[in-house]
Amino acid sequence: MIKATEHPPVLLDIKWDIVGKKEAFEAALPDRAIVLLDEARTQNLALDDVRYAVVWQPEPGLFASLPSLEVIFSLGAGVDHVVRDPQLPDVPLVRFVDSDLTGRMVEWVVLQVLMHQRRQRTYDRQQRERNWHEVPQPAAHQFRVGIMGLGTLGQACAKVLAALGFQVNGWARTAKTMDGVTSFAGQDQLDGFLSHTDILVNLLPLTEDTRGILSRPLLEKLARNGPFKAPVLINAGRGGSQVEADIVSCLQDGTLFGASLDVFETEPLPKESPLWGFDNVIITPHMAAVSDPAALARHVAKQISRYENGQPLEHVVDRSRGY
Amino acid sequence: MIKATEHPPVLLDIKWDIVGKKEAFEAALPDRAIVLLDEARTQNLALDDVRYAVVWQPEPGLFASLPSLEVIFSLGAGVDHVVRDPQLPDVPLVRFVDSDLTGRMVEWVVLQVLMHQRRQRTYDRQQRERNWHEVPQPAAHQFRVGIMGLGTLGQACAKVLAALGFQVNGWARTAKTMDGVTSFAGQDQLDGFLSHTDILVNLLPLTEDTRGILSRPLLEKLARNGPFKAPVLINAGRGGSQVEADIVSCLQDGTLFGASLDVFETEPLPKESPLWGFDNVIITPHMAAVSDPAALARHVAKQISRYENGQPLEHVVDRSRGY
Repeated sequence: MIKATEHPPVLLDIKWDIVGKKEAFEAALPDRAIVLLDEARTQNLALDDVRYAVVWQPEPGLFASLPSLEVIFSLGAGVDHVVRDPQLPDVPLVRFVDSDLTGRMVEWVVLQVLMHQRRQRTYDRQQRERNWHEVPQPAAHQFRVGIMGLGTLGQACAKVLAALGFQVNGWARTAKTMDGVTSFAGQDQLDGFLSHTDILVNLLPLTEDTRGILSRPLLEKLARNGPFKAPVLINAGRGGSQVEADIVSCLQDGTLFGASLDVFETEPLPKESPLWGFDNVIITPHMAAVSDPAALARHVAKQISRYENGQPLEHVVDRSRGY
Repeated sequence: MIKATEHPPVLLDIKWDIVGKKEAFEAALPDRAIVLLDEARTQNLALDDVRYAVVWQPEPGLFASLPSLEVIFSLGAGVDHVVRDPQLPDVPLVRFVDSDLTGRMVEWVVLQVLMHQRRQRTYDRQQRERNWHEVPQPAAHQFRVGIMGLGTLGQACAKVLAALGFQVNGWARTAKTMDGVTSFAGQDQLDGFLSHTDILVNLLPLTEDTRGILSRPLLEKLARNGPFKAPVLINAGRGGSQVEADIVSCLQDGTLFGASLDVFETEPLPKESPLWGFDNVIITPHMAAVSDPAALARHVAKQISRYENGQPLEHVVDRSRGY
């Protein structure tokens, strides 16, 4: 039995080994039971009265075992890992949108753009060789950064990149207006966007439309008249959007100048992947914007409070769009 | 003989191997002779009618050979390399302040701050080992960045760092007011500033007061209660401000968590310097903010035009302050 309280319990199915995740939820929701799925399984707890579930990559069928479920919370900004369950019940699915998560993504994207622009990997190598040598370093204003996906994360990245002097373009499914950012929209304007992009930043959600979008045909459409004469790919969206065999061959034949990848088709990235070994490819272990447990718990508590008080939930996913 | 024109010639003593430096000045000042010091020496040209000199690390005595000199232009934001000449004539000395130079410095400082905050050198090492592993990564808002020197460069860096979420403090000789930046001023407030600094960014000019300021006694006063429990030193000011033996020993004994150094006591940094070899020390070859020859030439042309039209020169150094 789940400890009885006057408020419905919250189930956590967070597979990441986040220290303090349960404690963070207990602090944010002090008046109700917080149940970890693993504990419920071990202790044979019935999940009949679970009304809220906070999930990451839930196993197919999990939702079918939660008859009282009323709201699903995704642990991240993306929900591709949730909507793939064919038995997904018809209840609101809420994404995690938070200033902490947004800030982390901006840090990572800005760091990666600057590392390529300022040739950090070249200077790293020269440092190992104790070689004092300046290489050409075009200024920020000479680069066109193209951001695919102009939601909360994309717009926040665009703002800081523009403050650094980069020319910033954006592409989204539908047109967005943003000061200092030239916006392209829809399939019709994708090629025009790509041909004006020296550094491509992917922040698109993973949907049927974006699966495998980062493939050779797209990469070949990027600008080749920028400061490096070949483009840079930065992916902090989803690994399912990239075709890694194409990215490897584009790096090998010079179609790409470099890349920064935080997400992969298979995670952890297998040791045999050639992506690990390129000097001008920066690999990070899906850590660009890790959900802070305290911020996540505050977000869930706020939305539950809204829901139970009859206010509309925020950040609800439009299932027809997939995000 | 220098080619006669109706306007007084400009002497360039730019020791950096900047491609197109003479051409940039000829384009910006089409109506007067541009003379490189090296060419003048080789061709035995008299320098009697040189009224303007654009210099970097001029040799002692150069100015004594220019009897008609009216204005000296420094190739950089700093003038320590000029004022050390005991025979420096009493003519205006103009610093190079320019949006291009400022932008380059902001790029470099922001890149270095983010590399430390996001543990880039640790991820670089893990990439070489093909090791998929997330290390603790505190958020920007958990770090206090302290900027020494709140002139044009310091203020521009503060603005972008604050936009990224860092807590930004500044220290200067005299108090400065800036939105979102807590300002400390003068010797009295230096210790208070240091004790609230997790990441120290030095942008101070090199003067009698700042020579050797980045030494063990100062580094020991930095905060040790920040996210890394030890501070990071970032120096994009002048190498003469740092005591490298102290920085090395502070890195070895944990007084410093890491460092990014673009300037050194001796440049190029000697191959035997232990600074090259630290994993968490990023070494770059005095390239943080390299003067763009076109921007430098435009700046000099603008100031000569002002001067010859009876308007006051801008960015004139106060010799009593040394910057």
